[in-house]
Amino acid sequence: VKVVGEIVFIGLGLHDEKGISVRGLEEVRTADTVFLELYTSLLPNFSIERFEKISGKKVMVVPRKELEENNGRLLLRAAATGKTVLLVPGDPLIATTHVALRIEATRQGILTRIVHGASVLSAVIGLSGLHSYKFGKSVTIPFPYETPPETPCNVIKQNMKLGLHTLCLLDIKAEQKGYLSIHDGLTALLEANTGREEKVVTMDTLAVGVARAGSNKPSVKAGSVEKLLKFDFGAPPHSLVFPGKLHFMEAEALIVLAGAPQELRMVAE
Amino acid sequence: VKVVGEIVFIGLGLHDEKGISVRGLEEVRTADTVFLELYTSLLPNFSIERFEKISGKKVMVVPRKELEENNGRLLLRAAATGKTVLLVPGDPLIATTHVALRIEATRQGILTRIVHGASVLSAVIGLSGLHSYKFGKSVTIPFPYETPPETPCNVIKQNMKLGLHTLCLLDIKAEQKGYLSIHDGLTALLEANTGREEKVVTMDTLAVGVARAGSNKPSVKAGSVEKLLKFDFGAPPHSLVFPGKLHFMEAEALIVLAGAPQELRMVAE
Repeated sequence: VKVVGEIVFIGLGLHDEKGISVRGLEEVRTADTVFLELYTSLLPNFSIERFEKISGKKVMVVPRKELEENNGRLLLRAAATGKTVLLVPGDPLIATTHVALRIEATRQGILTRIVHGASVLSAVIGLSGLHSYKFGKSVTIPFPYETPPETPCNVIKQNMKLGLHTLCLLDIKAEQKGYLSIHDGLTALLEANTGREEKVVTMDTLAVGVARAGSNKPSVKAGSVEKLLKFDFGAPPHSLVFPGKLHFMEAEALIVLAGAPQELRMVAE
Repeated sequence: VKVVGEIVFIGLGLHDEKGISVRGLEEVRTADTVFLELYTSLLPNFSIERFEKISGKKVMVVPRKELEENNGRLLLRAAATGKTVLLVPGDPLIATTHVALRIEATRQGILTRIVHGASVLSAVIGLSGLHSYKFGKSVTIPFPYETPPETPCNVIKQNMKLGLHTLCLLDIKAEQKGYLSIHDGLTALLEANTGREEKVVTMDTLAVGVARAGSNKPSVKAGSVEKLLKFDFGAPPHSLVFPGKLHFMEAEALIVLAGAPQELRMVAE
């Protein structure tokens, strides 16, 4: 039985064209139309050509404008007559723009289904070695010349007060191939201290840098901001974690898996 | 070139044997030994037989005891001489027991690699339609006869004060096939009001129930606790979300995608 009129949001997971789930790939193979957006997140080794080869389907790249200004008209039109897939980096529906499209599709009577994929959120949490249930609100550090990172500082401060960890995503401008690095993200946070009574992130603050989560060679390094500023994390994408109170198992993970200094054991509980 | 001495933690993603990523499946196919644990999370439709068929590998189920009491001795022994895979529901390293194994392996000079999978954390966030960066600390609601759910109430209360959403996982005892339902989780939270000056969860509290995230037929319903107590969510696994302050787009998502009452628009910002 052929389903007429549906959009299947499929997560591409992380890193390259093999991050998609087996079920997701099967869904692509039976689709009438396959769209792909690559601007909400960076999949550094994703090749459209290789993806088309393993899926046997032509893929149409949807620009940001189509999704955000035209409300996904192209997709909604295709979905009215056949099985339409939207491939999304990571886990679909984490970016708000896809939720908006799903709402619009539902309003028009188009069925929607989701095939989840690995998300940078849980990947970075896992790679950091910190306990997932001790993370507070997460935040994105914007490019410094756009907005001063007041919000990230406030989020980190609030979480620290509660003893919670903070996951900081680093802004990307995929269409201009711009990816905020750990180095530049930290520099922006340090500069945000200017004019603050209470500094939030200083050279001595403990942080964890994670680069290329989902690749075969992720780089994970824990230490003071001063140390991380000098560390070469290599190619993007980068993320940051600011730990709150540490359980002794978490300190152990940071020391053994991320090269944090041994003294971290002293501050753990 | 054959790598000797490594453990590859591979996420099985959600729901069944096709939740694994294409890369994960490839890694299984070239492994010398494949272990599987199924107790940290529920994959309702996972069949070991079907997984062995698609991967071409025999899979050995590791009981909880082996990982938690024996420090994964069996795995570490296998990893000393060949490529060893540990299959984990969801995204690996979210359960602390796997982080402990990774630390121990690293101490013994065994290489570790991670192949991420879709996690219930981001899946439920996406299905709820709420903005991921507005979630605070998450929490697990324990079986009521074990611990009174003081902690979940405190976490929900703290998040609400900050205007943040709370993701509540519901406890499982996979080995006894026990899965806390949305109904019983809510009942436990209501009972936790006894003796509290300030009630946290009442019959009028807005909540979102999510069942079978990752399946083709997830059930997502938003409404008052009173409404959700009467709603039939079907088979496990179940999760709960307690929304904090709602953005108008989030209210829209809860109304259109999860059947919340239209009046929700009035309280959104």
